[in-house]
Amino acid sequence: MKPYIEMSVEELSEELDQLKKEYKTIQALGLHLDMSRGKPCQEQLDLSMGLMDVLDSDSDLTCEDGTDCRNYGQLTGISEARELIGDMMENNPKDIIIYGNSSLNVMFDTISRAWTHGIMGNTPWGKLDEVKFLCPVPGYDRHFAITEYFGIKMIPVPMTLTGPDMDLVEKLVSEDEAIKGIWCVPKYSNPQGISYSDATVRRFARLKPAAPDFRIFWDNAYGVHHLYDDRQDYLIEILAECKRAGNPDLVYKFSSTSKITFPGSGIAALATSPNNMDDFTKHLRIQTIGHDKVNQLRHVRFFKDIHGLTEHMRKHAEILRPKFETVITTLEEDLGGLEIGSWTNPLGGYFIMFDSMPGCAKDIVSRCKKAGVIMTGAGATWPYGKDPNDSNIRIAPTFPSLADLKSAMKVFTLCVRISCAKKLLAEKKEAA
Amino acid sequence: MKPYIEMSVEELSEELDQLKKEYKTIQALGLHLDMSRGKPCQEQLDLSMGLMDVLDSDSDLTCEDGTDCRNYGQLTGISEARELIGDMMENNPKDIIIYGNSSLNVMFDTISRAWTHGIMGNTPWGKLDEVKFLCPVPGYDRHFAITEYFGIKMIPVPMTLTGPDMDLVEKLVSEDEAIKGIWCVPKYSNPQGISYSDATVRRFARLKPAAPDFRIFWDNAYGVHHLYDDRQDYLIEILAECKRAGNPDLVYKFSSTSKITFPGSGIAALATSPNNMDDFTKHLRIQTIGHDKVNQLRHVRFFKDIHGLTEHMRKHAEILRPKFETVITTLEEDLGGLEIGSWTNPLGGYFIMFDSMPGCAKDIVSRCKKAGVIMTGAGATWPYGKDPNDSNIRIAPTFPSLADLKSAMKVFTLCVRISCAKKLLAEKKEAA
Repeated sequence: MKPYIEMSVEELSEELDQLKKEYKTIQALGLHLDMSRGKPCQEQLDLSMGLMDVLDSDSDLTCEDGTDCRNYGQLTGISEARELIGDMMENNPKDIIIYGNSSLNVMFDTISRAWTHGIMGNTPWGKLDEVKFLCPVPGYDRHFAITEYFGIKMIPVPMTLTGPDMDLVEKLVSEDEAIKGIWCVPKYSNPQGISYSDATVRRFARLKPAAPDFRIFWDNAYGVHHLYDDRQDYLIEILAECKRAGNPDLVYKFSSTSKITFPGSGIAALATSPNNMDDFTKHLRIQTIGHDKVNQLRHVRFFKDIHGLTEHMRKHAEILRPKFETVITTLEEDLGGLEIGSWTNPLGGYFIMFDSMPGCAKDIVSRCKKAGVIMTGAGATWPYGKDPNDSNIRIAPTFPSLADLKSAMKVFTLCVRISCAKKLLAEKKEAA
Repeated sequence: MKPYIEMSVEELSEELDQLKKEYKTIQALGLHLDMSRGKPCQEQLDLSMGLMDVLDSDSDLTCEDGTDCRNYGQLTGISEARELIGDMMENNPKDIIIYGNSSLNVMFDTISRAWTHGIMGNTPWGKLDEVKFLCPVPGYDRHFAITEYFGIKMIPVPMTLTGPDMDLVEKLVSEDEAIKGIWCVPKYSNPQGISYSDATVRRFARLKPAAPDFRIFWDNAYGVHHLYDDRQDYLIEILAECKRAGNPDLVYKFSSTSKITFPGSGIAALATSPNNMDDFTKHLRIQTIGHDKVNQLRHVRFFKDIHGLTEHMRKHAEILRPKFETVITTLEEDLGGLEIGSWTNPLGGYFIMFDSMPGCAKDIVSRCKKAGVIMTGAGATWPYGKDPNDSNIRIAPTFPSLADLKSAMKVFTLCVRISCAKKLLAEKKEAA
């Protein structure tokens, strides 16, 4: 089929009529499909059921260092968990704090602490007239929700295929002391699924921010979430790079096992410099007596070591690979050559990003909904939920079954075609 | 033996010499005993090992309402956990949020939220010139640490045998809009082990604070922690009482299973009014996607219902009762009639409070330490760690074995006698 843009008014009208018929047929099916969030599917959760077996009432819940995991203590986590997560995050265990079940919660608390107490002796952000964050766009809605909640002004920075536009990032952070942070999902990014290039990471590590309390919020949520054995993105380890660059305190690195074991029942972690660690623990020792060490031990006993975790991730990949491929194949088959949208083709992570013709995303998502397919809300990938082009849609293929996903993607591509055909037709009629 | 105060200089000198000899003998034993924190002992932890068995890889981790506990969702907790904890806290499940592993963390976050965002539309505390909290004294050091960390001015309010001095509480909160809260451990209080009387609870529920955002921080940490079957304190349920009094939003009630199952691996909860719940959840949905539901389910499957939990607490009581009785017996045997100290004799909770002659607590704790017995630091029970009388010492009898506890208490009473004898002797010599 030829590009919609090249079709005549008649051809487009005919196409639209045909598409609308298909839409009615699909609507009649009464589908209920959810592609809105990055949730693991049941088969993925089943991979971790062994977690429930590694500890029983005969188990010795004592750590290597003699700590009874059942009792109070060990504010920064048990040493074997710090080692396992250290291997996962590619950081020294001593630079790691193991938290509770949610890295998002750690990020929230980090902003909250900066707000009330400031970072390493600097003025608390809450005492400043204005605080700004750079937000690579499209990005992760829950990041943006945190900064919005604190009244932090969010400045969109365009994402490229190699990460955020670093010329702009460098310029902005060096000029404006009110810019205190940047949200990054550096590997298999949300929603693009792309990974920051070596040059991008190096430039991040060499930033010269005007604000001494500027920090990179490096949410490496998908660090080990590859889809393929033979084709994987590689991300330069940022803490080491910052150290080499003479900027050791520049970054807070977050991770968790939420999409490795069970979302909500995994373990979250922070990796950062010794100075930042001191800053975090001063706060942490007032906030809590410690996190769930039994769950830390459970994870260590389940994976044993980083090799166990790596093998586990291969099983996830086996489940997810066909889902990602289904999305890509359907997009190619149904939209290829029409020039009404583009999409990413990631090697890992949880998302595929779709960009429609400008001005169509809301309409597409709304049409999907009316046909029983829930997509992430249009605009969600932008600060304040406002996508200036109204073009960006995040596709989350992990949760539905393969069969449901195929149906949902059929609905999606149909809605894209309807929406774009309609818009083009209107434009062509107006021009005529 | 007659009271020290009635002894002559010669008698006291002789007594002191004798005590010092005993102290040297004990020092030579090289003890290492810890009575500093309210930690459960190993036998207590063993009671909950069944928690490790109730879920295995064959378990269905689906909730009653169909939620898969392994995945994201259910921000305020799974309904069966809210029901169990509701029964424990004597509140309606719908008024309960189940949190992570630490109620202290919930309290911290509550203050932090009030600081950054304010309570129910009121000015954020961080924007006010001064914020004050009432602190019944002696009280819990970790409460005081939170308010101190936020720069909240702490005003001590004396504890009586029926709870805080309510005349003073009523007067202060009605007069001063800067007073935003009060820390309460209403049942088997930390460190006294006393429970607020009916009249005290009723007066709390009928407070007329000058500040619309004044809240009672009702930390009911020991609500089900009785030592005896036949003698138990009863505490009026504060939320219901506040509702009756027309003050439904006055109280935040906290609890957890930290000293029921495993400290650090239990579940924490908040009970509060619907208005307050809205306020909390608005914040919570930005802070996290949800807490550990598998652990919630684990607790529900382990206890089954409130009867199971009650029976479980009887087993704790069997372990703890002899420990508390050992402390009391040793205090009576070694210090009875000497008129150099007084102590509480609680029916539950985790602590016994000791009050020495003024000016002796620091010295006693220091002497204990030199003989290998670690007590909670003197002053810890007061805001800023400053006990104006230097008399208050918290005794935490739960963690050591019964044999160790006997030894430790022997050391303690010996140190009390030495310290007080020395002080009295100096005073008598000076007066002579």
